[in-house]
Amino acid sequence: MAKDINPPRGMRDFLPAEKAKRERVLAVIRGVYESFGFQEIEAPALEDLDRLLSGQGGDNEKLAYRVLKRGAELDQALADGSNPDGLADLGLRFDLTVPLTRFYATNRSELPNVFKAIQIGPVWRAERPQKGRYRQFVQCDIDIIGDAGVLAEVELITASLAALDALGLKNAVIRVNHRELLTKLLSGFGVKAEQLTQAMIIIDKLDKIAVSGVVQELEEKLGTEVSAKAKQWFDTLDVQVVPEILQGLFAVAGGNRLRFDPTLVRGMGYYTGVIFEIELPGSGSSIGGGGRYDGMVGKWLGSDVPAVGISLGFERVIDLVEDTKSGSGVVLVLEDESSQVLKIALEYQKELIGQGLSVRLELKPKRLNLLLESMKANGFDRFALVSADGANKELKSID
Amino acid sequence: MAKDINPPRGMRDFLPAEKAKRERVLAVIRGVYESFGFQEIEAPALEDLDRLLSGQGGDNEKLAYRVLKRGAELDQALADGSNPDGLADLGLRFDLTVPLTRFYATNRSELPNVFKAIQIGPVWRAERPQKGRYRQFVQCDIDIIGDAGVLAEVELITASLAALDALGLKNAVIRVNHRELLTKLLSGFGVKAEQLTQAMIIIDKLDKIAVSGVVQELEEKLGTEVSAKAKQWFDTLDVQVVPEILQGLFAVAGGNRLRFDPTLVRGMGYYTGVIFEIELPGSGSSIGGGGRYDGMVGKWLGSDVPAVGISLGFERVIDLVEDTKSGSGVVLVLEDESSQVLKIALEYQKELIGQGLSVRLELKPKRLNLLLESMKANGFDRFALVSADGANKELKSID
Repeated sequence: MAKDINPPRGMRDFLPAEKAKRERVLAVIRGVYESFGFQEIEAPALEDLDRLLSGQGGDNEKLAYRVLKRGAELDQALADGSNPDGLADLGLRFDLTVPLTRFYATNRSELPNVFKAIQIGPVWRAERPQKGRYRQFVQCDIDIIGDAGVLAEVELITASLAALDALGLKNAVIRVNHRELLTKLLSGFGVKAEQLTQAMIIIDKLDKIAVSGVVQELEEKLGTEVSAKAKQWFDTLDVQVVPEILQGLFAVAGGNRLRFDPTLVRGMGYYTGVIFEIELPGSGSSIGGGGRYDGMVGKWLGSDVPAVGISLGFERVIDLVEDTKSGSGVVLVLEDESSQVLKIALEYQKELIGQGLSVRLELKPKRLNLLLESMKANGFDRFALVSADGANKELKSID
Repeated sequence: MAKDINPPRGMRDFLPAEKAKRERVLAVIRGVYESFGFQEIEAPALEDLDRLLSGQGGDNEKLAYRVLKRGAELDQALADGSNPDGLADLGLRFDLTVPLTRFYATNRSELPNVFKAIQIGPVWRAERPQKGRYRQFVQCDIDIIGDAGVLAEVELITASLAALDALGLKNAVIRVNHRELLTKLLSGFGVKAEQLTQAMIIIDKLDKIAVSGVVQELEEKLGTEVSAKAKQWFDTLDVQVVPEILQGLFAVAGGNRLRFDPTLVRGMGYYTGVIFEIELPGSGSSIGGGGRYDGMVGKWLGSDVPAVGISLGFERVIDLVEDTKSGSGVVLVLEDESSQVLKIALEYQKELIGQGLSVRLELKPKRLNLLLESMKANGFDRFALVSADGANKELKSID
């Protein structure tokens, strides 16, 4: 009797067509980023748990999958009993940024002074499963570590837009803000230093609860003075004027594809400077984002190192990209499995592979048309029969 | 103060040069397998723990990393107390075969009747760290599910050897045996049916403890009758004669690169037919292996489905492959970060990228030669200076 056979909740199997599309899109992104001089690196999927949960991952830390200790260490932890936090020693990464800062600190002596990294890989978050949210999903990050100047932001923007262009997403735009502007703005509203994070989290809900909701929540949590000033500001908001601190960036990068958005917050607490969010107008949600996080690497090294990055939300991007797969596969249908037929088929297969084709061998079934139909659906568009008399070298189209 | 900053024990960071080599080698393997009509798929890195530990993974099950339950389920499991096995609900895959059989069972209705799968990805094993053994490592598997005939074995062998050829490992050979031959042989020694697995595990140690060690252990564990017959067989072993059950395969596949080896066992208990091990003479260890496992998929589906696969040991292969990286990168060295210089640099970068080059922007440091040295080590072989007067378009070689 068949058992319940699904992948774990919130995780996905990728069938051949979807997997091929994912690999094609990743190859485009990787290729563009490499053309801009970024270099791909890889850190393990697991990190030591205390490092992963050191406060740099924000709310995502709560979503980390924790790996149970093993052997004597597990026995000891169980014997200790009182503290469940001691049961795990490793965790699956929930983003690529925390591992990158650890990677940089570990390997700095072998890296260029200005390190321009590509990271492409899965991350895991134990989120409540919902439409469009997965518990394993791929991120594509580029980061520049060791450059405090505007050049780093310019390169990240240029490379990201070029990658999206190469995928046909030519109307993507990047919303930009600066954490210092946010801080000044909120201080002007009367928000105290220790309430800044709370105020940013409320403003970050603008997309979901609109101005009226934000003003109401500011009033409830931070008082009427703050909310009244915020309301006034929202009412007179003029996003046409790019503030001085961002003028250098806007003068150079993005063509007409940067938008200053004084309401942009970005959830993570570690940002210290410019913040980005990539949007495809009409797609209804962000397809990437990032910002400057100058304090994070220093946490491991004990000395400050500037850093800035942009992450593409690959799972959003893949849904927006049109598939351009071209079927150029050949099926050789073998009359039987005799040595003679197999030898002829292998030889012909080799010849066709040498011509750049993908060539699949199939034993002739009772109903050839069903096989060919299935092969066509899998990207094989031509076939030939192979019998003891030889291979019929006139490839026929599967229709 | 700098903290202890290493990846988790037994796991590795890949720096740009090594990561680039790994991606190049994977692209070659993937490309060859696709040219033989195999299709890549992907299953999640995590599987439900009870499925992962259902007895099909052999000794590797003991090495599985287990993921702690979360929220109320963890609280409940801790309250239950007595059974540490109840603390985890997911596990990281320790091979690609167990997930593949689950994947096939889940998705069979959407797959071709004969499913030819490529899987490339990391697996995790909590092994005692030692030279050449890692706790996260990449496997490259091809499997054919749904074909009980010799064609499947022929294709796996042909595609595997073609992949190794494409990597320059043209002297790789494949040792072949058949589980039925092993069973008959051991029965002939007087090994009882319930001792067959134990006997195979002993013979599998031949590489490590030689004939004398195997004979001694057989005597200790299975008695003198068995060990005496085994000794006699080892003494008169003639590996020149290919047995009938393998003659069809040897007549067709592998050219002169198949070797019948009646002592080949392969560790996993699930093999039911032909078994393979890939060797590079002189390299001292196996670089891959596999075999037929007709019973495994049926375990999930409730009906038997034939299956056979070969796994390349990617971490062994990568060490044996020579790197053929060609440096064709350009560094544009910017005199300053002014808008004017940045604009000129971006324009020239775009032009050079259009010519297929990888182009990196760097702000001119105090000591240009140190920068260029570091860039050269990272695969950038030419440079040009960019100032407010324009880009010097005569690319200079970095030497």
